[in-house]
Amino acid sequence: MSVAPLVVKLGGGANLDVDAVLRDLAALQRPWVLVHGGNAELNEVSTKLGHQPRFVTSPSGYTSRVTDLETIRLIQMVYRGRINSDFVLRLQAQGCNAVGLSGIDGRLWQAERKEAIRVVENGRKFLLRDDYTGKVVSVNTDLLRLLLDNGYRPVLTLPALANDGSAVNVSRPPPWPPPSEPTTCSSSATFPASCATSTTRPASSPASPRRTSNPARTWPSTA
Amino acid sequence: MSVAPLVVKLGGGANLDVDAVLRDLAALQRPWVLVHGGNAELNEVSTKLGHQPRFVTSPSGYTSRVTDLETIRLIQMVYRGRINSDFVLRLQAQGCNAVGLSGIDGRLWQAERKEAIRVVENGRKFLLRDDYTGKVVSVNTDLLRLLLDNGYRPVLTLPALANDGSAVNVSRPPPWPPPSEPTTCSSSATFPASCATSTTRPASSPASPRRTSNPARTWPSTA
Repeated sequence: MSVAPLVVKLGGGANLDVDAVLRDLAALQRPWVLVHGGNAELNEVSTKLGHQPRFVTSPSGYTSRVTDLETIRLIQMVYRGRINSDFVLRLQAQGCNAVGLSGIDGRLWQAERKEAIRVVENGRKFLLRDDYTGKVVSVNTDLLRLLLDNGYRPVLTLPALANDGSAVNVSRPPPWPPPSEPTTCSSSATFPASCATSTTRPASSPASPRRTSNPARTWPSTA
Repeated sequence: MSVAPLVVKLGGGANLDVDAVLRDLAALQRPWVLVHGGNAELNEVSTKLGHQPRFVTSPSGYTSRVTDLETIRLIQMVYRGRINSDFVLRLQAQGCNAVGLSGIDGRLWQAERKEAIRVVENGRKFLLRDDYTGKVVSVNTDLLRLLLDNGYRPVLTLPALANDGSAVNVSRPPPWPPPSEPTTCSSSATFPASCATSTTRPASSPASPRRTSNPARTWPSTA
C-alpha cells in the first residue's frame, strides 16, 4: 500500500509567502498533494471584468461567496487557469513534476449541489437558490494515487463536479484527506515547521471528514 | 503495446460547433486525446482586461500572436482555465471521464524557447525579442499513456513548458502525434465522418512531425 501523502492546504488570501511554501514542497522527499484557493485574485479579476463579487452570511455566521454561473466561470479562469498554472510552473522550475487539476478533472471531487443556502441579511433569514455551491461527497483517490505512484505531484483547486453535471464552488474543504486533517498555511517562510495544523472548517460544522483506523498509512476509498 | 489513440485538434476560432465534436468524442469507444486552442476567446478576454492582442507576420507570411508575459498569463486563464474546463465539464456531463491538462502539467509539452522571432512590418524586417514563444521538442507520452490506460481522456491545451522554465506559446502544433497527422475540426455536426485530415501547419513549414513505420500502433517515445 502506498505511503499516505502529506496534504497541504494553501489558503486563497493575499499576502501569503507562496514562494516559501512551494520551495519547501519541492524539496520534500515524501509524496504530497497541494490544495489551494485563490479568493483574493478572484475578487480582483472579477471586479476588473465587471462582475462584482458578492458574499452572504449563514445563520451560523459562516460567510460564503455568492456563486452564480459567471462566478463559476471566473473561478475556473482564476483558480485553475491563473493560480494553479502559476503554482505548477514555479514547482516545475524547481524540478518538481507537478500536475494541476481541478475537481472536475477525472471526477476528482464529486459533490452534491445544494438546492438552496440559508442566508441572513439585515436580520432577515431567507433561502438563496440557483447558487452553484455544493458539498464534496467523494474523492477520486485512485487518480491521485496513480499520479503520485508515478512521480507526479498533484496541485488541486476548485471547482468540484456536482451530481447534476455542473461545476460548483465548495465553501468548506473537501472531505479529503482523512487520514489526517490538512495542514493549512496562512503565514510565511517557516513552512512546514511552524505550519498550524488546522482546517478552515468552523468548529460547529457537522460534516467531519471520515477517518480511518490507521491514519498514517491508509487512504480513504473512493465512494 | 497500447492501441494508438485518435488525436483530434480543435481550432480556436469562433463559430465552431464544439458541442458536436464533444458529443462524438464522448461516444467513441477508441481512446482519444483532444488538443484545443482558444484564440477567439483569448482576444475577447484580453481586450476586456485592457491588454489589446497584437499580431506579427513572419517573412514567410505566417501570422502569430505577440506573446509577452501578460499574454502568457492570459493564455493560461483563458485556454486552460476557461475553455479547457468548459470542455472537460461538457465531456463529463456525457459520461466521459476527461482530464484537462496544459503543456506545463507533468512536463507534457517540453519546448525550446525562441531567442527571437523574425518579423516583417511595413516591408521592414526585424527581430522581435523577449517573446514567450517556443517550439515543442518533446512530449511526455508516458503521462498520456498512463491516463488513457486507466480510462481517462486527456484534453490538452497551451502553454508549453520551455527549457528556461517559462511557459510559452507555440504557434505551430506540437510534434505529436505521430503516428498520424492530427485531425483538425473546423466545421460542424458531421465529425468525425467529414472532418478534414489536415494540420494548421503552413505547407512550406520545414518542421514536419516525426513519423513511425507503423502509424496505427505505435507512439512516439518521449525524448
